[in-house]
Amino acid sequence: MPATPIYRTAIEAAWIDYNGHLRDAYYALILSYATDALMDRLGLDAPYRAATGNTLYTLEMHIHYLREVHHSDQVLVGVQLLASDHKRIHAAFGISCVGNAAVAATAEIMLLHVHQGDTVASTPFAPEIAAAIAALASMSADAPWPGPGSRRMELRGR
Amino acid sequence: MPATPIYRTAIEAAWIDYNGHLRDAYYALILSYATDALMDRLGLDAPYRAATGNTLYTLEMHIHYLREVHHSDQVLVGVQLLASDHKRIHAAFGISCVGNAAVAATAEIMLLHVHQGDTVASTPFAPEIAAAIAALASMSADAPWPGPGSRRMELRGR
Repeated sequence: MPATPIYRTAIEAAWIDYNGHLRDAYYALILSYATDALMDRLGLDAPYRAATGNTLYTLEMHIHYLREVHHSDQVLVGVQLLASDHKRIHAAFGISCVGNAAVAATAEIMLLHVHQGDTVASTPFAPEIAAAIAALASMSADAPWPGPGSRRMELRGR
Repeated sequence: MPATPIYRTAIEAAWIDYNGHLRDAYYALILSYATDALMDRLGLDAPYRAATGNTLYTLEMHIHYLREVHHSDQVLVGVQLLASDHKRIHAAFGISCVGNAAVAATAEIMLLHVHQGDTVASTPFAPEIAAAIAALASMSADAPWPGPGSRRMELRGR
């Protein structure tokens, strides 16, 4: 689990598919809600969005599916900031089930700070947001990374 | 758009987030439903799953978010098989909006054929499934790939 717990949820019955476990897309939904929680933590919350017209857009998402998650599970999401610049955040997430140390999924998400005006354009973080990003990044700088990193997808022998 | 149309859907109101467009996770849900349609196409459908106890598990998913999708849009998903072996399929998907040639998202998904018994174990495709995979792969072998391929995620200058 990456260093900083950011989100926890039960598993809704509608998220279970014909295979009897959490459908792949609902791992992404849990990650999306965890990203909302990350935005709240960094000051990119609803009042900020309403006041500034700024928000985060997702540019790219990679998920590794490592273990099945079931309706009876509670899941925890941890976050670790791998990198950032003046307008982007590269965040890593780990999803695990309460009571099970093994990671159920890992993910990386690239986020872009934008202003939604007449057009949508990228815009730099304000100093207080940049400071919050730096503070969170420093908290998890030494955390061990629990799973495979992102990579070019290809068939390899196994 | 990759060569073979596989799925089409309207956009549900619940899939729109506070940014006024399709939430990142619901691109994944559309891709998940498109994968179900791909399974039907390859003979890995519900009767097959019930008769054999075999199904596909998602190992990995990468999504590039290229354009916003709105509640008023209808989206089309095309599929292209990039590679396969005796038990895995590496599929590429393109999501586009009806009436707009520009691709809204591209994705790659790695799928593993498994048997769900007392334990879950990977299992080879039967010959008729392998033949269906080969037939679909040959249909899209020459299709131009519409967007960025999967890659290691990292911050680069822009």
